[in-house]
Amino acid sequence: MPHSLLTPLAHHAQDLLSAVRRDAPLVQCLTNFVSMNYAANAVLAIGASPAMVHAEEEAPEFAGFAGAVVINIGTLSSPWLQSMLLTAKAAADADTPWVLDPVAHHATAFRRDAIQRLLDLKPAIIRGNASEIIALAGGLSAGKGVDARDAVAHAEQSARDIATQRQTVVAVTGETDYVTDGARAVHITGGSPLMPRVTATGCALSAVVGAFAAVSRNDAFAAAVAALSCFGIAGQRAALHADGPGSFAWRFLDALAALEADCLTRESPLR
Amino acid sequence: MPHSLLTPLAHHAQDLLSAVRRDAPLVQCLTNFVSMNYAANAVLAIGASPAMVHAEEEAPEFAGFAGAVVINIGTLSSPWLQSMLLTAKAAADADTPWVLDPVAHHATAFRRDAIQRLLDLKPAIIRGNASEIIALAGGLSAGKGVDARDAVAHAEQSARDIATQRQTVVAVTGETDYVTDGARAVHITGGSPLMPRVTATGCALSAVVGAFAAVSRNDAFAAAVAALSCFGIAGQRAALHADGPGSFAWRFLDALAALEADCLTRESPLR
Amino acid sequence: MPHSLLTPLAHHAQDLLSAVRRDAPLVQCLTNFVSMNYAANAVLAIGASPAMVHAEEEAPEFAGFAGAVVINIGTLSSPWLQSMLLTAKAAADADTPWVLDPVAHHATAFRRDAIQRLLDLKPAIIRGNASEIIALAGGLSAGKGVDARDAVAHAEQSARDIATQRQTVVAVTGETDYVTDGARAVHITGGSPLMPRVTATGCALSAVVGAFAAVSRNDAFAAAVAALSCFGIAGQRAALHADGPGSFAWRFLDALAALEADCLTRESPLR
Repeated sequence: MPHSLLTPLAHHAQDLLSAVRRDAPLVQCLTNFVSMNYAANAVLAIGASPAMVHAEEEAPEFAGFAGAVVINIGTLSSPWLQSMLLTAKAAADADTPWVLDPVAHHATAFRRDAIQRLLDLKPAIIRGNASEIIALAGGLSAGKGVDARDAVAHAEQSARDIATQRQTVVAVTGETDYVTDGARAVHITGGSPLMPRVTATGCALSAVVGAFAAVSRNDAFAAAVAALSCFGIAGQRAALHADGPGSFAWRFLDALAALEADCLTRESPLR
Repeated sequence: MPHSLLTPLAHHAQDLLSAVRRDAPLVQCLTNFVSMNYAANAVLAIGASPAMVHAEEEAPEFAGFAGAVVINIGTLSSPWLQSMLLTAKAAADADTPWVLDPVAHHATAFRRDAIQRLLDLKPAIIRGNASEIIALAGGLSAGKGVDARDAVAHAEQSARDIATQRQTVVAVTGETDYVTDGARAVHITGGSPLMPRVTATGCALSAVVGAFAAVSRNDAFAAAVAALSCFGIAGQRAALHADGPGSFAWRFLDALAALEADCLTRESPLR
Repeated sequence: MPHSLLTPLAHHAQDLLSAVRRDAPLVQCLTNFVSMNYAANAVLAIGASPAMVHAEEEAPEFAGFAGAVVINIGTLSSPWLQSMLLTAKAAADADTPWVLDPVAHHATAFRRDAIQRLLDLKPAIIRGNASEIIALAGGLSAGKGVDARDAVAHAEQSARDIATQRQTVVAVTGETDYVTDGARAVHITGGSPLMPRVTATGCALSAVVGAFAAVSRNDAFAAAVAALSCFGIAGQRAALHADGPGSFAWRFLDALAALEADCLTRESPLR
């Protein structure tokens, strides 16, 4: 993205982080069992209020007053899928933005079917790794499990295709991230090689994307960019003193909580 | 509470912590997915033995030989509620004390109904934040999600009302905690502003309340006071060297494990 | 085991750790809610790729292309048991090795029945604490919950009996571990008294055993020995600077990730 466009985007990100801290939006997560604790802690660290509410009996109702909804299929089962479909629909009906994290959606027939039904319910933002985004666009990815085995650069065309066809924002995360709404696109640097070695960092990011979506209802692209920028800077800072994935995990939460809003302009990771 | 009553209560707390460490009581938890790991670690750190046994097929049977049962509705669903009701009943039938953590019980119709059915099964102790306790007494709370938006002081009358009407002990946690059985009441200081920024600290506390209830079958008030005192002191100590919520979380577990029993009298947080 | 046999076994363990790091095998875990995050992080730390895929709709299919399957009954329920049975069968049919962690299998009638049905599906390796292994062989154990209350030495005969009768490998973990396939047997030292004070370390070990089983399809005994050796050395190292269970938990993940393969021969914990 040309520099003349990056600067306003970085300022927008800074404003959005201040808004998250001021409003502490309620972020409803229907996420996987592996990530629930870490995602909730990341949402708290960034300044928002997480609510892991998943049951069919209440999740759609909750979506009516949540600031945003995050749906992650990491440990999918039929009852959870049923609730996810009803909650995504309720979110769409209430104009609550919702974020889709299509974890390993290409691994099994059950997931491949589930993800198509979720996509039809119009997520505001899709956040995945390169393998997931390539497979989502119908391409042949190298990944089988939850870990990415493709480079982000190979997923950019897939991301633009999905964004255009589905009128959504697609965020591909990896060594350098890529966010696009089909028209606009930006790269986000930072982070650390330790991030993919800590489980649930991607899921935690999707939850934090939800926090920003809640305070940026008219601009999902800016929300995704701001969330990924925070992760980029906090990841880089946490890695400075980490001795491995165990110490990185908690240092990263400390770094998220300590982010001063103007780091998003002073140390902007946008390219 | 007058000083003449605080001193024996602090000594009682000290004796109960020694008893938990000596007996390592089995604490059965039907708790939410977010808190399971952290609550189990807190129960281990205080010296007891956690058992996350939730299924209808076995949870009621398990309640027959557990030292205490803890029921937390954080990530409620119909099958879990069914099991919680059967297990609470089995606990009551076996004279096993059980602790209720009414997480966000006022958020949805499903929860509002569930909590009334659980309350009727006579919990020995109810542990919640101010918003939850106010709503439990029928008051209008400012909270919608899992985080408290009311001050503990505003929940004291509600706590006394519930304790009296339900013949139970109510513990309201926040900046300064409040515990009452309707007749007696005490404030507990300590802790840290970082505690509400770490997810599941409240749930972990409810689980640790269960550990104390198991060794104090005739005095649930003393059990709640002892558990909250441990959290108050350990929270204060952990915060001394924490740089944020990530480092607070594990330092708090270290501090719980390192509590020497006589800190409960030497540094008593009771007021 | 005589020293002449220990040395080749230690070299084998070293080769297997290198193979795990090189191949990053996909380890499918149907494990309990308490351990999911920590087990996934341990599998990542050792260099493999965890996938927590549990639903009946996809878990058996996934077992067809996973490197190994790990089944842990910690938070069992009927739908999960049904899926575990189908997945264990699918793993056996696909010649995918699977590991059984019989958490507290002797605590309730539901578990006692479940474990017999799982055992009949021929796990390659069974990993449990002394109380669990004694009870598995029909003996009278002192444990009731998830924590061991028997010494490993008292479980050795039980382990040999199960290994011989079931043609499997049995790993009993405790202060000093014991692994046997009925014919061979070895002790593994190391670790730390802090390990049983951190929840899910045993479950994480079972998941890491799965990672080694995936790269040692013809020798499950060697796989179990290698995994336990890694835990022994990493546990000892992590304890050096830990101040309690909270700091041990993340230091242990750092230590697992930092293991250089030749520590398994230079500091071999095999006896």
